[in-house]
Amino acid sequence: MPRRGTITLDLNGSIMTYCVGIKLKAGLVLLSDTRTNAGIDNIARYRKTFIFEDPGRRVLALLTAGNLGITQGVVTRVSAGVKRSDADPGAESIMTCESLYRAADIVGEAMREAQKRDRQAIESQGSAADATLLLAGQQEDGELRLFLIYTAGNFIEATEDTPFLQIGEHKYGKPILDRVIRPETTIEEALKAALVSMDSTLRSNLSVGMPLDLTIIPANEQVARTLRIDKDHKDFRQISDSWANSLRQAFNDLPSIQV
Amino acid sequence: MPRRGTITLDLNGSIMTYCVGIKLKAGLVLLSDTRTNAGIDNIARYRKTFIFEDPGRRVLALLTAGNLGITQGVVTRVSAGVKRSDADPGAESIMTCESLYRAADIVGEAMREAQKRDRQAIESQGSAADATLLLAGQQEDGELRLFLIYTAGNFIEATEDTPFLQIGEHKYGKPILDRVIRPETTIEEALKAALVSMDSTLRSNLSVGMPLDLTIIPANEQVARTLRIDKDHKDFRQISDSWANSLRQAFNDLPSIQV
Repeated sequence: MPRRGTITLDLNGSIMTYCVGIKLKAGLVLLSDTRTNAGIDNIARYRKTFIFEDPGRRVLALLTAGNLGITQGVVTRVSAGVKRSDADPGAESIMTCESLYRAADIVGEAMREAQKRDRQAIESQGSAADATLLLAGQQEDGELRLFLIYTAGNFIEATEDTPFLQIGEHKYGKPILDRVIRPETTIEEALKAALVSMDSTLRSNLSVGMPLDLTIIPANEQVARTLRIDKDHKDFRQISDSWANSLRQAFNDLPSIQV
Repeated sequence: MPRRGTITLDLNGSIMTYCVGIKLKAGLVLLSDTRTNAGIDNIARYRKTFIFEDPGRRVLALLTAGNLGITQGVVTRVSAGVKRSDADPGAESIMTCESLYRAADIVGEAMREAQKRDRQAIESQGSAADATLLLAGQQEDGELRLFLIYTAGNFIEATEDTPFLQIGEHKYGKPILDRVIRPETTIEEALKAALVSMDSTLRSNLSVGMPLDLTIIPANEQVARTLRIDKDHKDFRQISDSWANSLRQAFNDLPSIQV
């Protein structure tokens, strides 16, 4: 296990990443980075957001953090199920199952299978097999749902009291979400909060890196809008620069404290 | 060991706390919280900042995070050494030793002794024995120094490139320090940054709590100015409120992103 205060290198696809999912009355906002590292000299990009879409009927986004072999195993199992149900609508998959709660359960089962197959071997060579996923979406005539699935395959759901869920390196970017995100927040505001949250994480942690994958699922449309944000993306750069400048100004405006 | 994404309760005095030390050309700024919890229904306050002062000659501040039994053991050993050297100036302690580097070494030795005595028993009942400390100060005709001492008794020192060190729940409060702190930063600015960093941590993590202990060690005076900040402290409340309002304003001023 990683030791507090030491640099830990995970030789098996690192658990370091950052994904955030926000559930608003107006829709879902999801953001992931793309960095995966197996040691600081072996850094690669992997997409961590996966979209499953049957427009007007059901849309789901799956975001992954943790051991890359494990999360690829989970995504492969879940995708194979969707392919089977595309060919045979009677087959159960996350796209055909009765409820999104059951869809989270299916992802949890895929996690348990992947852990059962690989965990012991991964840990025996000193790496971490932990992984977490966000599953978010909506089915026709259903509610917007956002789940966080743990390594054990169990899961929790976002609620009005807890309208956002994070996986991976979540602490750097949490304060701004705590301050801003409410169920009534607009998609545009939540989008900015997600980008500022990611920007803070990028600045403070080398293991989280551009480009970013942004997904918006507006309420009751069952479609996903996606955007890949490269480091040269003009709007993102403006948000990042504006935030840095405003923080500096806010900082200068702080009252003094007598000591 | 704590599992990712689960609430962990440490029944032996929790490792959750937040302390930050900042080393500027103008002096040292140190801030700690006072919360210690052995499970969420057993929360207590413990001072985590300890001052050793021989005005004009040498001043040291010791800040602690981690297993409370271990850190109290370290502070007891170090303090006993100082008492011995008060009575017998020939005895070596952190207040009489040749250099502050050696003082960090003495604290590291106390850590190794505490770990040797208690670690196995603590871990055998499922708790964590990890602990970290900050040691900061200056001796007459010496430089300002700031060290972070790890569980293993080894330590690192703050440099021009890394002018601040944090222990405990450090991630929530790191982004503002990354943005603001440079060796040339004034004590007044660093003080605000430390308080904003603590404010963000307090808002995002239940295991860090008021009151706060603030210590300022101006360069070349070998004295410590200390202040306990309660939750009703007017200046701190104003900083906290001003920061919240400015963040909200900064957030409203962010440009839009096209999706």
